[in-house]
Amino acid sequence: MSLDPQRTIDELKALRSLTGDEHGAQRVAFTDKWLEARTFLKEKLLELPVEVITDPAGNLWATLKGESERELLIGGHLDSVPNGGWLDGSLNVLAGLEVLRRLSDQYAGKPPVTVRLVDWADEEGARFGRSLYGSSAASGNIDVHALAQLRDKGGISLGAALGGVGVILADAPQAKSQLAKAAAYIELHIEQGPVLENLKLPLGAVLGTYGVERHSVTFHGQAAHAGATPMKVRRDALLAAARLAQEIYVIAERCGGVCTIGSVKTLPGIVTSVVETCEVLLDQRHLNAQGLADLWQGAQDAAERFAEEGGCTVEFGDLWNIGPLPFHSELIDAVEASILDVTSHSHRLPSGPLHDAAEMSRAGIPTAMLFVQSLRGISHNKTEDTDEAHLRLSVQALDKLTDRAVRWILR
Amino acid sequence: MSLDPQRTIDELKALRSLTGDEHGAQRVAFTDKWLEARTFLKEKLLELPVEVITDPAGNLWATLKGESERELLIGGHLDSVPNGGWLDGSLNVLAGLEVLRRLSDQYAGKPPVTVRLVDWADEEGARFGRSLYGSSAASGNIDVHALAQLRDKGGISLGAALGGVGVILADAPQAKSQLAKAAAYIELHIEQGPVLENLKLPLGAVLGTYGVERHSVTFHGQAAHAGATPMKVRRDALLAAARLAQEIYVIAERCGGVCTIGSVKTLPGIVTSVVETCEVLLDQRHLNAQGLADLWQGAQDAAERFAEEGGCTVEFGDLWNIGPLPFHSELIDAVEASILDVTSHSHRLPSGPLHDAAEMSRAGIPTAMLFVQSLRGISHNKTEDTDEAHLRLSVQALDKLTDRAVRWILR
Repeated sequence: MSLDPQRTIDELKALRSLTGDEHGAQRVAFTDKWLEARTFLKEKLLELPVEVITDPAGNLWATLKGESERELLIGGHLDSVPNGGWLDGSLNVLAGLEVLRRLSDQYAGKPPVTVRLVDWADEEGARFGRSLYGSSAASGNIDVHALAQLRDKGGISLGAALGGVGVILADAPQAKSQLAKAAAYIELHIEQGPVLENLKLPLGAVLGTYGVERHSVTFHGQAAHAGATPMKVRRDALLAAARLAQEIYVIAERCGGVCTIGSVKTLPGIVTSVVETCEVLLDQRHLNAQGLADLWQGAQDAAERFAEEGGCTVEFGDLWNIGPLPFHSELIDAVEASILDVTSHSHRLPSGPLHDAAEMSRAGIPTAMLFVQSLRGISHNKTEDTDEAHLRLSVQALDKLTDRAVRWILR
Repeated sequence: MSLDPQRTIDELKALRSLTGDEHGAQRVAFTDKWLEARTFLKEKLLELPVEVITDPAGNLWATLKGESERELLIGGHLDSVPNGGWLDGSLNVLAGLEVLRRLSDQYAGKPPVTVRLVDWADEEGARFGRSLYGSSAASGNIDVHALAQLRDKGGISLGAALGGVGVILADAPQAKSQLAKAAAYIELHIEQGPVLENLKLPLGAVLGTYGVERHSVTFHGQAAHAGATPMKVRRDALLAAARLAQEIYVIAERCGGVCTIGSVKTLPGIVTSVVETCEVLLDQRHLNAQGLADLWQGAQDAAERFAEEGGCTVEFGDLWNIGPLPFHSELIDAVEASILDVTSHSHRLPSGPLHDAAEMSRAGIPTAMLFVQSLRGISHNKTEDTDEAHLRLSVQALDKLTDRAVRWILR
């Protein structure tokens, strides 16, 4: 049974029919549709000489025992956001399944190292607001007491949702033992951005995941009558915020990385008053810790300058942050070589979105990722798509990468 | 009985006690508190040889018959916004009352021309969203069918509220006959802005009311993942809007007048996405029709340029507009001369807010206004205030202006 990339596409479409509707994929973690997707996967795994378990956090593992106990992990996630796309997460899993088939066939059920396919639970965090749940449990990066507080919009707790699929939240940290013999982690994912499409390249080697600094920036000025207040005496909180919304482009040009203001709120927010209070939400990302620090410092300096020049004040709030998680340089080389096995050009790029791979890297496991082009950079949406020729190339490149990673483990 | 400006202040304070609470003035039109304020005024008017009527729109007129049937009108409004200030509107009326007292005394009840004090109904439009109701009825600028649709937050119609104070909405246009013999209209008002305070001047002569162009400006870009989308390929609707928020200061510097963006809405409005749609509300005001047209054209040109440069599109919506209403140049001179009778400096300034005087000017009546300094430019708020020495000067200047207007009518 040789590698059949078209089979992966066919299985992705079958999964879409099974678990999607006219609004897109509906495989939200811990729901019936997600369980159906897992059953779909388990039925496919029955055809292989693998051991299938669900770990104490709810991650699904399929283990193909090898000559060496050292393990190569291939990861993905079947869960989706509500009204999601057909590829995000599922491509990773089903391409990994296809690689397991090829390995099993080539090595008569016993490859040189143990290879494990993992379907992480609740990568998206769409329902409880905590992404990377399953991989964080495995990496030792969860606080079950904090997680026990999470509730979905219907008031159901994460603990209750986990209980409904047979998982006890308090036991989730025990998933860590699954990584005891892990020697490397690889993952294929759609890019979810426009970089490869703009370069007209099907595949790219991921350098790591961006660190994130996420803050609120609130300017305080003075409400004043829109008709009665001359421009020169205004203390317009929106003007200061508007200058920052432009300046983040200058800051990102200078420091690298990306900066986004995704939300603006104005108070009193009426057409007849100068804006007294303007709150913006700022998201900054960089692959390098110093670069990330420079981005955030640059934004603070600019905000303070614009506030002062406009007779306003500014305050900063912390929303969230995480450091950059660079991948393993030798495995990045392996990803690039594997891409060049199947196509003429490769490109190295950072990942803006976080992935389960970041948790594996954080756990100290040598990690790498392979991106396949996304059409129009769209994901988390029913219009998420990738050219089928590119999907086939991505399965082939993951297969080549698997062999390289096996050799690297045995080096 | 000579002019007693301190009495006006005392009466303002008495009215505040009668119709206000700890949150400010509560004289919303057509409510019990507003009726109490009118009763307060009517009791004061009983002491004068004036005829008091309520016209078919609900405006209250006190007429001091003169040698000539030609009429000088002195206007104001007792109604306030909810939680309003003690001076906005009431100062006008009670200062006018004091001038009537002085005239009646000086001319033994019969001044050279007929002088009428008018308390306009519902200047603020706080309850039904239609400001200048009473003066618009008198100027012939109302559509009773449109007004009949208006409802307050409790679902009560304007017609029902008028019925509760004895006014039939369908009859309101008959108020127009009240202006048949009007030869001039004068009004004292607090500035509601910071101009006179910044100049350290108590009083100013108003050039007219600004024309207003009020529009929505909606930029459409492309939602994109905040982490996965390089800065250079973004189509960021907020960036285009932010550039406009700065550019309106440049446009106002070039054209005169004032421009305000008081509200910004962002969609999807989440921290992890570039803004796809950004709607801003733009208010532009100018004393000159060409200047107003230039402001709005300048904003449209800039918005289209910023949209194009940012890969976005822009659409414009009409919210409201009104032309500038300049006051009568000879009466503006009379206001200035009257200010200089009581203090050493005057200043000419436009009015950003609309006033009943604008409706009188629109009706073709020679009109002028006198502003008294507002502390901190604040109005429509319980902290609205004016130095009492300045209030006394304003009553004196209105009195001088009355004599000048009488002479101007008889010129």
